[in-house]
Amino acid sequence: MKKLSILVVYALLSISVFAQQALWGGQNIVSPEIGPDNKVTFRFFAPKAIKVQLTGDFLAPQKIDTPFGKVDAPGMVDLKEGKSGVWEYTTSEPLEPELYSYSFIVDGLKVIDPNNVYLNRDVATLTNIFIIGGGRADLYKVNNVPHGSVTRRWYNSPTLQMDRRITVYTPAGYETSGKQYPVLYLLHGMGGDEEAWVTLGRTIQIMDNLIAEGKAKPMIVVMPNGNVALEAAPGESSLGFSKPSFQLPKTMEGSMEESFPDIVNFVDSNYRTIKKKSARAIAGLSMGGYHSLHISKQYPDLFDYVGLFSAAIMPDAKVKSPIYDNMDEKLKIQFNKKPKLYWIGIGKTDFLYKANKDYRKKLDDKGYKYIYYESEDGHIWRNWRIYLTEFVPQLFQ
Amino acid sequence: MKKLSILVVYALLSISVFAQQALWGGQNIVSPEIGPDNKVTFRFFAPKAIKVQLTGDFLAPQKIDTPFGKVDAPGMVDLKEGKSGVWEYTTSEPLEPELYSYSFIVDGLKVIDPNNVYLNRDVATLTNIFIIGGGRADLYKVNNVPHGSVTRRWYNSPTLQMDRRITVYTPAGYETSGKQYPVLYLLHGMGGDEEAWVTLGRTIQIMDNLIAEGKAKPMIVVMPNGNVALEAAPGESSLGFSKPSFQLPKTMEGSMEESFPDIVNFVDSNYRTIKKKSARAIAGLSMGGYHSLHISKQYPDLFDYVGLFSAAIMPDAKVKSPIYDNMDEKLKIQFNKKPKLYWIGIGKTDFLYKANKDYRKKLDDKGYKYIYYESEDGHIWRNWRIYLTEFVPQLFQ
Repeated sequence: MKKLSILVVYALLSISVFAQQALWGGQNIVSPEIGPDNKVTFRFFAPKAIKVQLTGDFLAPQKIDTPFGKVDAPGMVDLKEGKSGVWEYTTSEPLEPELYSYSFIVDGLKVIDPNNVYLNRDVATLTNIFIIGGGRADLYKVNNVPHGSVTRRWYNSPTLQMDRRITVYTPAGYETSGKQYPVLYLLHGMGGDEEAWVTLGRTIQIMDNLIAEGKAKPMIVVMPNGNVALEAAPGESSLGFSKPSFQLPKTMEGSMEESFPDIVNFVDSNYRTIKKKSARAIAGLSMGGYHSLHISKQYPDLFDYVGLFSAAIMPDAKVKSPIYDNMDEKLKIQFNKKPKLYWIGIGKTDFLYKANKDYRKKLDDKGYKYIYYESEDGHIWRNWRIYLTEFVPQLFQ
Repeated sequence: MKKLSILVVYALLSISVFAQQALWGGQNIVSPEIGPDNKVTFRFFAPKAIKVQLTGDFLAPQKIDTPFGKVDAPGMVDLKEGKSGVWEYTTSEPLEPELYSYSFIVDGLKVIDPNNVYLNRDVATLTNIFIIGGGRADLYKVNNVPHGSVTRRWYNSPTLQMDRRITVYTPAGYETSGKQYPVLYLLHGMGGDEEAWVTLGRTIQIMDNLIAEGKAKPMIVVMPNGNVALEAAPGESSLGFSKPSFQLPKTMEGSMEESFPDIVNFVDSNYRTIKKKSARAIAGLSMGGYHSLHISKQYPDLFDYVGLFSAAIMPDAKVKSPIYDNMDEKLKIQFNKKPKLYWIGIGKTDFLYKANKDYRKKLDDKGYKYIYYESEDGHIWRNWRIYLTEFVPQLFQ
């Protein structure tokens, strides 16, 4: 093979590769480049540009104007033009271990880094990602440990009268062990879908790593789609390549909670699960925390472990559904059965901080036990990855 | 939920959404927009740009200079600046049914369409995609038909002494039918990995649709990684988010062929397969066609169906491996056993056209039977999707 001509090799790669300037132009740009000191250099080839900027969640936040007033947005810095049209910026400080996202802004135009194919989609926004290893962030990496399997499949919901897509993680060894496993049901937020915890949440890597380190029990993780008006994630249903949006009509009006037993039944009849309350957990972020709160109290014999990650604590009083009736009474029933873990996590600057504080007070007043975890920052995926790594080791112990 | 304030809704979507100009700037751009006549309009918001161009595989190809002379590259057209900084281009003719790719070029800078989150990665290049429905292209869409499952998992290769990632499609109903299924092993080209047939090849949609239409037998499709120096696709191994490259050292020197029985053994012991030659097919594109050619003749009792899609027909005479020794003799053994289908497909302008013609002559001279399918165009994914839709209905009949 070493003898194959370079022409043949490039030809085998098909024509699209020719579109890459880097291949022919002598540009071989590395971006981002993580230095040995964890300072990170970003590079962008744009010889005609007047201004190249970088925006990322590792830069000091900026206030931006919105119709609702000033809100925090990721920070922005200028790159400096160097030789041959390559613009560059190096962080002034080493970055702490974490998964970060960024984009470039070239003469006002937001673009992804053409030298980094790793992206996350959050609703309709694509951003590049990179990981600074070390500490907790090593859990977000693919490491040389036994790997679980990830399956995208479809289940039927008799309640919703739909076939719907679902993502299922089974731990390493599941296929051949013959054993039965506990199950974590993991729910996304309003902008997400059955892919969100896998991509933005790094759930597969977190599970593989925590299990390999002996810090979590081997478990199945089930990631359904919480927008019950939809069959599947963008691009994965018969809606085709339509523009992703968040579906208001059927996200927080009771349908997800009502139809949730369909998912549990599907999982219990298609996987080797331990079919009892003490082997079931439910957790979710934001809207998924709201769903977890209401599902766990609606079916007080289903889940012994509940995780509310930056949970929305509505409903609005005007939303009518039997799911949201008699909330206090249902909570009483749930807590009288003494769930093994009721876990609440939220960031100090989250816009839902006060709603969570009020909810905790409600639980405190009744003497209902829960674990509380308060983090820095607000309503962001960084926190939800952290909460997952804190929550999972406490399950099924 | 309808009563939830729009502020709360946006807040629930987390901060990254604020980065979208479209959300606040009053821009609500649709791109691409497929008209009722299948003319397609592309739009790009770039008020400061001097020139905005579109490149795509539906435009007349252009010749570009490379160190190896002029080669065909996707065509390019200028967009016209309209009101409020939105540039626009509409195809002069309706587009034929097909899956197409495109990018914008803004003042010389190649960028993806910020209004289209649907992308394919080919080696290290990201391009946007869209589908014009109708005819064969309807097979590339997610339709309202029973859906199979897709699993990313890891198998152990004793020959290579590695755990390696593999993608497995099981047809709708597999989990509960109790039946045994035939297996198609589907191999990628030099720039690909275990994701390539799923993303660029639309294999899941093609299989779901052909099976639902009764045009293909329900079958398992196994998509391994053909670069045996690697454990997994970019971003999915402990190499982390390193820049994707094609691995010359161990792609076409015999290791893939030598270690292939490990994959068959894994599949036969982990899935309900029909464990005989008449229920096994192997096919691949480019380098994967080369692998299919050599694997099927090296193990003449394993596969009754062989598909060579734009196959490389080396080895170079200087490549030494027992796999490539005594080629004529091995082919004789293979064809004396009368494979049920030996299928060769290639495009008229493929740089491998002559090598395939020579190979067919070799088969003709010996009287070895095969089916030949000649298409337009060259060494491109459009052809490999077409070949898959032609090949699969002929399997296991």
